[in-house]
Amino acid sequence: MATERLVTVGLIQAACSDNRAANVEAAVLGIREAAKRGAELVCLQELFATRYFCQTEDAEKFDLAEPIPGPTTELIANAAKGAAVSVVASVFERRGAGVYHNTAVVFGPDGEIAGRYRKMHIPDDPQYYEKFYFTPGDLGFVSVPTPKAAVGPLICWDQWYPEAARLSALAGAEVLVYPTAIGWLPSEKAAHGMKQLDAWRTVQRGHAIANGVFVVATNRVGTEGEDGIEFWGHSFVCDPFGEVIAEAGEDEEMLIVECDLGRLEDVRREWPFLRDRRIDAYGGITARLLDEGK
Amino acid sequence: MATERLVTVGLIQAACSDNRAANVEAAVLGIREAAKRGAELVCLQELFATRYFCQTEDAEKFDLAEPIPGPTTELIANAAKGAAVSVVASVFERRGAGVYHNTAVVFGPDGEIAGRYRKMHIPDDPQYYEKFYFTPGDLGFVSVPTPKAAVGPLICWDQWYPEAARLSALAGAEVLVYPTAIGWLPSEKAAHGMKQLDAWRTVQRGHAIANGVFVVATNRVGTEGEDGIEFWGHSFVCDPFGEVIAEAGEDEEMLIVECDLGRLEDVRREWPFLRDRRIDAYGGITARLLDEGK
Repeated sequence: MATERLVTVGLIQAACSDNRAANVEAAVLGIREAAKRGAELVCLQELFATRYFCQTEDAEKFDLAEPIPGPTTELIANAAKGAAVSVVASVFERRGAGVYHNTAVVFGPDGEIAGRYRKMHIPDDPQYYEKFYFTPGDLGFVSVPTPKAAVGPLICWDQWYPEAARLSALAGAEVLVYPTAIGWLPSEKAAHGMKQLDAWRTVQRGHAIANGVFVVATNRVGTEGEDGIEFWGHSFVCDPFGEVIAEAGEDEEMLIVECDLGRLEDVRREWPFLRDRRIDAYGGITARLLDEGK
Repeated sequence: MATERLVTVGLIQAACSDNRAANVEAAVLGIREAAKRGAELVCLQELFATRYFCQTEDAEKFDLAEPIPGPTTELIANAAKGAAVSVVASVFERRGAGVYHNTAVVFGPDGEIAGRYRKMHIPDDPQYYEKFYFTPGDLGFVSVPTPKAAVGPLICWDQWYPEAARLSALAGAEVLVYPTAIGWLPSEKAAHGMKQLDAWRTVQRGHAIANGVFVVATNRVGTEGEDGIEFWGHSFVCDPFGEVIAEAGEDEEMLIVECDLGRLEDVRREWPFLRDRRIDAYGGITARLLDEGK
């Protein structure tokens, strides 16, 4: 039986307006409140400072990007330091002219940047035109040390990729944190909405099980755009057995969830999947398809 | 919208006795009955010919192994041919003195061996002493063509490895088939039984979602050994969205399940995960842990 090692995670599930300052201020207030309620690691949703601007392709929207450090990260850094909590914050990063990223910044409770992750898997679907905006990440998959947990920052579309979860876990991440912006299109919700939500939750629970880690997903809520996306919320935390231990509804909500990282040690002893990986036989993972020579 | 492409899958969930001839005869009869009920691809459980002998380490048990082709595979080949169905059959393979495998053989409806897979991930847990018996497979992960579906044969412990599912799918498999022998230990069932079952189902549903494939898992039932394993059954089929479309209970049962492989095309268009894989960044998958130089 491993030693108990508790960390309290805070998830801030929010709707965003067109008023960037108000969105950031709400996040700052949320960080403070989460800390007051015991959170030691606070996870904001994807691109929390703005509406989900990827619903159209509009070059003017690149004006929303900021350098890191920049005005938004300064405010979040101050909030992290003021509340003495670690924070995962997803920002639209301006790295240089013509090179913009969707980036998750991990702040320590001292307000310093502990690490960053640039979204590796970039979607492109109707109303999710992210390939227009985001240059694919070039930092790989990482584990960021914070005082209470090794954090594996990943972002939204990464949720569907077992490779992303695995590589973050192999790097040492104990908690995979996914800032998210996913929702229903009006044309699909009635027929497929519940199945989409269930698939989204299930594949991430699978990552928790396969890797013996906690998974934290913070999604946004609210409807954005005309005939637009209804962000479905349902932010959740699951344990290394894949069991959902807390889940939000479809409105603004804060989750405060105690996680015992000591369970990683126990679960990985009970079901020692990492021991038996066939690393001699996984080379094909770097292929697009294994269809050559057939 | 893709063209409908139907295949009917049959799963034979059975208990096994000490009478090998009777176990194989039951499988042969099951194949015939499944075919009569419309099955075109029949999936037997792991090591269907015998009790799950890995509950102890006993060198005498190597006598149970057979070459391939051998007496058991001949009977199954004849049954496949007689009923004109494809069959996935898991056998204890004697490859040579001191080299034994846990092998899934795929037979075509002509009774010929269409392909084989040797279990790659070998567990070793109390009452699952497989590392004693089974040399790790050396054929890698494969897709086996059958008239109605490209089959990705995998076996039990492989269920926990996203790499196995991914590599089989990249090789072209449309249906991942897992012959299985998993159950509860009496000491764990009350506290963890339902969570273990749910994790087992969930991680496989995750493979279906991440890869856009059908998943078929055929498990055994019955209790074997003193204070032994209660094999939990719950054989199931899930679609490429991870939705369970058929599931057995905890007794002997046959499932006959129609699957539309045309859905693979649709689901992969709706959520095009394979398009966005970062094959430039997955090299670390072949590492044991990414902990060096830290």
